[in-house]
Amino acid sequence: MKHDPQNLRHSSICRQLALLACGEISSQQLTEIYLDAAEAENAHSRAYIWIDRVGALRAAKASDERRASGRALGRLDGIPLAVKDSLDVQGLVTTAGLAGRSKRVALRDAAVVSRLRGAGAVILGKTSLDEGSLGAMGRTAHQGDVPNPRHPGKVAGGSSAGSAVAVALGLASAAIGSDTMGSVRIPAAFCGVFGLRPTMGEVSSAGLWPCLPRLDCIGPITRSLDDLTLLLQTLSGYDPNDPRTRQRRVPFAAPDWEPGRLRSGMVRDLDRLGASAAVLKSFEQAIAAAAPALGHTQPVLLSDFELSRARRAALLMMEAGIALADPEDLADCSQRLRAMLDFAERKSAVDYARAERRLDNAVVATRRLFDSIDVLLLPTTPDLPPAIDSEEPDHLADFTAFASLAGCPALSIPLDGGAGLQLIGPRGSDLRLLELGEIVHSLIG
Amino acid sequence: MKHDPQNLRHSSICRQLALLACGEISSQQLTEIYLDAAEAENAHSRAYIWIDRVGALRAAKASDERRASGRALGRLDGIPLAVKDSLDVQGLVTTAGLAGRSKRVALRDAAVVSRLRGAGAVILGKTSLDEGSLGAMGRTAHQGDVPNPRHPGKVAGGSSAGSAVAVALGLASAAIGSDTMGSVRIPAAFCGVFGLRPTMGEVSSAGLWPCLPRLDCIGPITRSLDDLTLLLQTLSGYDPNDPRTRQRRVPFAAPDWEPGRLRSGMVRDLDRLGASAAVLKSFEQAIAAAAPALGHTQPVLLSDFELSRARRAALLMMEAGIALADPEDLADCSQRLRAMLDFAERKSAVDYARAERRLDNAVVATRRLFDSIDVLLLPTTPDLPPAIDSEEPDHLADFTAFASLAGCPALSIPLDGGAGLQLIGPRGSDLRLLELGEIVHSLIG
Repeated sequence: MKHDPQNLRHSSICRQLALLACGEISSQQLTEIYLDAAEAENAHSRAYIWIDRVGALRAAKASDERRASGRALGRLDGIPLAVKDSLDVQGLVTTAGLAGRSKRVALRDAAVVSRLRGAGAVILGKTSLDEGSLGAMGRTAHQGDVPNPRHPGKVAGGSSAGSAVAVALGLASAAIGSDTMGSVRIPAAFCGVFGLRPTMGEVSSAGLWPCLPRLDCIGPITRSLDDLTLLLQTLSGYDPNDPRTRQRRVPFAAPDWEPGRLRSGMVRDLDRLGASAAVLKSFEQAIAAAAPALGHTQPVLLSDFELSRARRAALLMMEAGIALADPEDLADCSQRLRAMLDFAERKSAVDYARAERRLDNAVVATRRLFDSIDVLLLPTTPDLPPAIDSEEPDHLADFTAFASLAGCPALSIPLDGGAGLQLIGPRGSDLRLLELGEIVHSLIG
Repeated sequence: MKHDPQNLRHSSICRQLALLACGEISSQQLTEIYLDAAEAENAHSRAYIWIDRVGALRAAKASDERRASGRALGRLDGIPLAVKDSLDVQGLVTTAGLAGRSKRVALRDAAVVSRLRGAGAVILGKTSLDEGSLGAMGRTAHQGDVPNPRHPGKVAGGSSAGSAVAVALGLASAAIGSDTMGSVRIPAAFCGVFGLRPTMGEVSSAGLWPCLPRLDCIGPITRSLDDLTLLLQTLSGYDPNDPRTRQRRVPFAAPDWEPGRLRSGMVRDLDRLGASAAVLKSFEQAIAAAAPALGHTQPVLLSDFELSRARRAALLMMEAGIALADPEDLADCSQRLRAMLDFAERKSAVDYARAERRLDNAVVATRRLFDSIDVLLLPTTPDLPPAIDSEEPDHLADFTAFASLAGCPALSIPLDGGAGLQLIGPRGSDLRLLELGEIVHSLIG
């Protein structure tokens, strides 16, 4: 092998596909590099709950054989990926971060896992997450807090903590997470990598352990923007088993924006919404650097959207959704989770219906906003990564909730210090956000 | 006027548009015919809660003036329509069937009313409905039970009782109803007219008094199938104010069926589902007569869909939704409604979340069904219209709930005795259902 394994580990999928195509590496070599690193570092990184050496090497061998024999290759053929442990992988346990699920072997692959395998990808293992995906810190029931790989003493963020850490530390080519209120974007920002929440209904969530199906969304975490595009195109598609995917879905088409004609929304009340001084500073620096790409800018007041209230409404719905799990799954859960489930039990069906209406209103308000702008720029989180021994702040998902509630796509680009810059667009604008993200990212430098 | 008012009253919109176009009648004449008949018969028919003579004549005059001056005319220019009193008409009260709302003047038109006016239609008034749209009998808080105009001593059906009666008795050219679990189709069948529940999200429900926004659907009631097509095309469209309408919506396109290649689902367990002998007989006669149009038929077991359970789940969600209304609106409600609202208050948020999952499962099950068939044939109701003094049967909406839960379009064609034949197709197949309905209806004779 001509390539330094340390470099390979941290390269993009697109580069790895090129090396595989030239025969400069094999999928088995690449897979072993990741397996070795993941195993060697897991006690400290806490990225993986389960590493599937046997299954991964078998899939890598099959990929190498396909390539050698000249058979048709998938878009991700031979690429080793990590999958959040809220997604079913056939034959492996899906803990969903719950102690009570430590023996729940999945009988079949989740829809996205099946699509990844169909594209030739290799599944390395299952990554760690907050208990029941309900958390933004990376506080796991199995391994304790997941440390931030870039910022010592800080949390990795959650709930897709292990997926973000695996990508940041070069323990997988990329990883799949899930995002109900920000669980892909928050750890991606904290760990200094890219995360995408696609348009709701573009990616099937069949086989995802459900929090709140109306908002549950599967998204990729990568080291490069091109890789997000590649993964999005692999993951998206109609699935009859997910009632929210659509046969004629919102197409990934060009909205009406051209370079120079872009209308960007600039949030003017971030301080009132609780953004810290450090986040404000890095956000404003990024916006200033990206200004040439942002076209005509318009002020937006997010206070009008009652984000914190809508987020709390969604939280009640998530808690009620998790309370539906098999009682065995929840048997040994934490006091924190138990208190949240009890809260949902005490709330009435009318309270739930009220929360649902609040979400409907959020959709309408966001649609109106995207009548007058093409993209909204927003920090990913109001705070930098909290210290690992601190309480979970209440408002960590307030800025990610915006796109979640509206079903809109949102891209998180890493900034310094564990901050993130979100680009949010109307439904179906995923590919355009990624294009614009590329320009913005190169301007930020 | 060369035409007998009694004939005119009962003719189709398409015929009336032809007469208006030839100048053989004016909109003012047509509107006055309907206003006179509606006023003269209302004490007995109980079709209207409010007749807007002044507003209707003003709109009719404006239409006649447009026509006389050669200005552009809308698709429904000059056609007098009745609107269910759960829909806002600017300047008129929207009671939603609730005694407590008798002073709630609407500040603006509902989206569909605005579309109808944009097409030149004349709004005659507001039609009677069950209390809060929660009922299938036509049992109104304002005027008592609405009698069935075709079957003496029986109920008209609900909740869009007055809309169906106005169409059956020739008190409007057509009427608009709303259908959460069957409220358009049930009274249409009982009163011997046509009703359509369109694909969910095709018609905006902004300005509809909400029961359960996920299932609330506005649909037309007419004396002819062509009129349903005309109204559907006028009503459907994207509305940013309704979070369930879509910018790129499921198109009204031809699914993959051709004459002779149609795959029709025939329900084989209607008796187990509680269909009465009279309904079974009229359904089987209709199917036998329509056989030449139904292509390849396949047996379907509806017991697999747990309709009654899913309907009860949706009912809880409706009750919780109605409980969100302004307390003043519900102040003087019936004991029956109060008991339903109290029930929702006693149920927990977790119960609601469970009901929601049941609805998701219903969507998935129906999608799978429509992989193997193009159209499902089903009676509209399990019983013929009940006697006017009887208790409301529990299962009256079991057969209409099927399409509601799945968000699918459903057409109800009247059969003898107050029975109805439903044609149900996958989402977006509305126009094809109407085409097929035309053939089936002519075969039934």
